[in-house]
Amino acid sequence: MKKIINDPKNFVNEMIEGILLAHPKDLKFINNDLRCLVRADEKKKGKVGIATGGGSGHLPLFLGYVGKGLADGVVIGNVFASPSAQQMCEVTKEIDSGGGVLYIYGNYGGDVMNFDMAAEMAEIDDIRVEQILCTDDVASSPESSKTKRRGVAGLFFAYKIAGAYAEEMANLDEVKRVAEKTVNNTRTMGVALSPCIVPEVGKPTFVIGDEEMEIGMGIHGEPGISKDKLMTADEIVKIMIDKIVEDLPYKSGDEVSVLVNGLGATPKEELYISYRKAHKLLESNGIKVYRTYIGEFATSMEMAGMSISLLKLDDELKKLLDAPAYSPFFQQMK
Amino acid sequence: MKKIINDPKNFVNEMIEGILLAHPKDLKFINNDLRCLVRADEKKKGKVGIATGGGSGHLPLFLGYVGKGLADGVVIGNVFASPSAQQMCEVTKEIDSGGGVLYIYGNYGGDVMNFDMAAEMAEIDDIRVEQILCTDDVASSPESSKTKRRGVAGLFFAYKIAGAYAEEMANLDEVKRVAEKTVNNTRTMGVALSPCIVPEVGKPTFVIGDEEMEIGMGIHGEPGISKDKLMTADEIVKIMIDKIVEDLPYKSGDEVSVLVNGLGATPKEELYISYRKAHKLLESNGIKVYRTYIGEFATSMEMAGMSISLLKLDDELKKLLDAPAYSPFFQQMK
Repeated sequence: MKKIINDPKNFVNEMIEGILLAHPKDLKFINNDLRCLVRADEKKKGKVGIATGGGSGHLPLFLGYVGKGLADGVVIGNVFASPSAQQMCEVTKEIDSGGGVLYIYGNYGGDVMNFDMAAEMAEIDDIRVEQILCTDDVASSPESSKTKRRGVAGLFFAYKIAGAYAEEMANLDEVKRVAEKTVNNTRTMGVALSPCIVPEVGKPTFVIGDEEMEIGMGIHGEPGISKDKLMTADEIVKIMIDKIVEDLPYKSGDEVSVLVNGLGATPKEELYISYRKAHKLLESNGIKVYRTYIGEFATSMEMAGMSISLLKLDDELKKLLDAPAYSPFFQQMK
Repeated sequence: MKKIINDPKNFVNEMIEGILLAHPKDLKFINNDLRCLVRADEKKKGKVGIATGGGSGHLPLFLGYVGKGLADGVVIGNVFASPSAQQMCEVTKEIDSGGGVLYIYGNYGGDVMNFDMAAEMAEIDDIRVEQILCTDDVASSPESSKTKRRGVAGLFFAYKIAGAYAEEMANLDEVKRVAEKTVNNTRTMGVALSPCIVPEVGKPTFVIGDEEMEIGMGIHGEPGISKDKLMTADEIVKIMIDKIVEDLPYKSGDEVSVLVNGLGATPKEELYISYRKAHKLLESNGIKVYRTYIGEFATSMEMAGMSISLLKLDDELKKLLDAPAYSPFFQQMK
């Protein structure tokens, strides 16, 4: 295990301590618990609060999207493990300012169970909670059972859109509506070239041959749809774009936002070489690229590979996507 | 070689094509040459132009720092190879708007030779050119011969400071002065855990054992100062901070900006665990952290490892560091 870490038991807490030391004006912990973080700036009375959370090992997911025009609070689990219901309830109480709270998170069993329970606990305190599960990974289940799909990098779009609308003081039903539309319009496909290592385990999460890749693999190493000999960037991207575009029918003239996401160890050079092909394929399908996001948005520590997400846009989504946003991990000025 | 690429011969041009397709409002190429990029927005008459350049394989270096409050133009070489004097001269002519041009780049033989020649060629066209070589890598040469040191991630600070001052319409002498002060006040140390592979070569640039690390290694795999058994994050950071702080004497109460830079494959989690220790060590030396930058700023493709840079600040540098900046690869809102 070749990592720049100290005792693996302290991996998550030392990471959070580093983040809080680096960004003291942006984030703070509450309830004497490093795993419960909220925005450090002043709360706006009546604004819908947005909470998220999940396991560690995916930076900038999840805590990197706590900031202006994004989420308001986050609960942080151990590596690849869900945080607790109690912690989510504490964050919910902290970020509520009268407008209720929307949970946005990925569709994983532990998170669903804990955040359901947190929502019930918060309601005892008279806080209205609504939930949106992100299910963008087309490789994880067929279209006919798409509510079983996992949430991956497409979560970014849900934070961005819902966060922008909440910042405009839209009410909880409205923020939930745009978050739901965003999830319904988002599709992602990933490819992995190497595994990652959970620090406390010390061994790779899966095995992949020196010349192999796995298409459709999940961000925790969940099995993909095929293990193949490594192809060229253009071949890989074609498989991904074809699968995404057929899953959510497009017509000529549709506009999308494209997110090319590095899984951790993949150089930006490769992400742009991949984007080049994605752009050309979309163009040849008559689909227009409205806005791009290229970099690391949802990782698996040192996993090599990438994912491509498309968000199909309408005028409302375009406007919200264009709004400025600020967190220590993500800044959009224009 | 496990990379998401097409024909290695096309690695650089396809990367640039992807960048131009992804960011058409921000960057454009000139002179019918993909390797010569400039800002796509309107030029400000009389503003000092800032040009940079160097080999590919280091994204977001160099082209990622072309934008508002940063550099104005860049020339892009093959992987780890210098671009030509002629190309730099073309970019110089394009970005000059009457105020002269400052070259800011890393201290590598090929770049120095070519950019010296470009400056001479530009002067024939009556464009005044000044140059600042970045020499921040303390491991590459002793303090007594510090002009021989290589330029690494600390280049970021020179772009940020000089770019902000040029945006304020400071003249060429003044922009050069703050760039020089920035370089003189910046020190970097790196550590590598794995090599990278130049696509057209197809083999790792160097060999490092499964349990080894190399402290002081350059971003092209230049030898470091020691090859050791992998240490903990806290031990590695202590070696780096001690070496940086002793190279440029600090007194209690001094303020710094800290840049923790991932070399390509190192997860953000590890960068923050490292920052945590750096912050504590600086604090115990009486040095105050004014602003942090943590992420990938100067990489070696898929190399694992990181570097830490410190910029010693005064009031002038603090003000310029705080100015907003925008490029497709780097945004600072506040």
